[in-house]
Amino acid sequence: MIKKSFLEQLKTAWKKTNSLLCVGLDPDFRKLPDSVFLSESPIFEFNRKIIDQTAQYCCCFKPQIAYYSAYSAEDQLEQTIAYIKSNYPYHPVILDAKRGDIGATASMYAREAFSRYGADAVTVNPYMGGDTLQPFLDYEDKGVVVLCRTSNEGSAEFQTLQCGERSLAHEVAHQSLGWNKNDNIVLVVGATYPEEIGQIRAIVGDIPLLVPGVGAQGGELRAVLENGLLEDKTGLLINSSRGIIYASGDSDFADAAGEAAHVLSAEINAIRAAL
Amino acid sequence: MIKKSFLEQLKTAWKKTNSLLCVGLDPDFRKLPDSVFLSESPIFEFNRKIIDQTAQYCCCFKPQIAYYSAYSAEDQLEQTIAYIKSNYPYHPVILDAKRGDIGATASMYAREAFSRYGADAVTVNPYMGGDTLQPFLDYEDKGVVVLCRTSNEGSAEFQTLQCGERSLAHEVAHQSLGWNKNDNIVLVVGATYPEEIGQIRAIVGDIPLLVPGVGAQGGELRAVLENGLLEDKTGLLINSSRGIIYASGDSDFADAAGEAAHVLSAEINAIRAAL
Repeated sequence: MIKKSFLEQLKTAWKKTNSLLCVGLDPDFRKLPDSVFLSESPIFEFNRKIIDQTAQYCCCFKPQIAYYSAYSAEDQLEQTIAYIKSNYPYHPVILDAKRGDIGATASMYAREAFSRYGADAVTVNPYMGGDTLQPFLDYEDKGVVVLCRTSNEGSAEFQTLQCGERSLAHEVAHQSLGWNKNDNIVLVVGATYPEEIGQIRAIVGDIPLLVPGVGAQGGELRAVLENGLLEDKTGLLINSSRGIIYASGDSDFADAAGEAAHVLSAEINAIRAAL
Repeated sequence: MIKKSFLEQLKTAWKKTNSLLCVGLDPDFRKLPDSVFLSESPIFEFNRKIIDQTAQYCCCFKPQIAYYSAYSAEDQLEQTIAYIKSNYPYHPVILDAKRGDIGATASMYAREAFSRYGADAVTVNPYMGGDTLQPFLDYEDKGVVVLCRTSNEGSAEFQTLQCGERSLAHEVAHQSLGWNKNDNIVLVVGATYPEEIGQIRAIVGDIPLLVPGVGAQGGELRAVLENGLLEDKTGLLINSSRGIIYASGDSDFADAAGEAAHVLSAEINAIRAAL
């Protein structure tokens, strides 16, 4: 069997789902609705219902591992990813873990993400340098989603420092071209800095961008799309977590999440159709 | 009960143990000696024996979480840390996890390290900015060990870029002064770059430095001590992982680890006595 590159997986997902939306599965145990606690696996129960109601409106899912590991719920993360792979095989799963370490240890993190959890991609932190990303990049059919310009306010502290001819974030973008031999790089650029999305798009050509920060963090959708879309009107994974999974805190949470995903995906599609 | 700051914990550990050695517990499942597989918890069994033989020669322990999470062995990491806390209460446990994310998620990672695992400190990545470290720093009696100049060869790719008047690593060091309101910051500076240890020491005053990269990675001990020691001949946590835990791959692994820790700690003490 010839394995598809992660870029090919994304292209298939964009086409089959007609969506650029990535649904972030960050289920804060303290905020889950009472109804899911009837299950022995309340986090998985919550996720399963969210997934079933949002899958038709999104192209991928992104569970954030800290929400599971803080509560000793690694098993429910495994269940969640297995559920997506079984039921929605065209939706890639990006494990949001922001890993990074020297080579021998990075291999262990890659094993965690790809072998243990079966994720299709993992987020990584570039601070330690490209050699620390290599063990992830060597999984040629898996995606490596590198932090570039993050959505938080404090991201300017280091990422916008002028390092020679470029900012640090732009230097990461520039170096990522060399890391992309297996067509498996994605860069993270926050919706809160749409002008950066345009600048980074100009550096990296058609490398996909994962864009967090719409909704709860206040990023503007139109500016994101104007700056980040490729010619074929794809190239972006626009993430929403809290805006979707907590659309209602009540027993109708799954329907509300589905509706929120529907609305956001439709809004993205209306804007990109008009561009 | 008044909680001790992490700096006070370290000072007590340095004094009580007369050692600057940090033993890294990075037990690669594929390299463990046959004898530990008689136990149902082979990683913990390996660690327990290493800990018992090395504790008298080191001031702290640093388990690396990827070696546990890659093999679904979180329970054995919990056992390991609990074992140290019960039996060697003066040895702080630094959970090496290199976490970093936006605020809400960083709180979950802090909960993982400090509440779930009961670690005394955790390593973090500064790329996303100081606001992402705040949820860790807010645990005022816990240590926050920030990557500054890492020991790997590729660390130069970003960390030595000239950002205005300083390199990126020096900028991180400079900013860490502002993050240190609870006396709980430690910076990571690789033994492979001893001149950086001196430069960073000059920036951060008496903030402790965690120094990986002696042994397997080739860092030079004398240069590390000359550049990093404080006036009172403390201020450093000199980490060795593979050089100690794999000193023998056979059933005598624990004795060999004890001997390796003894030799390295004695070497450190001989050099610092002569300085």
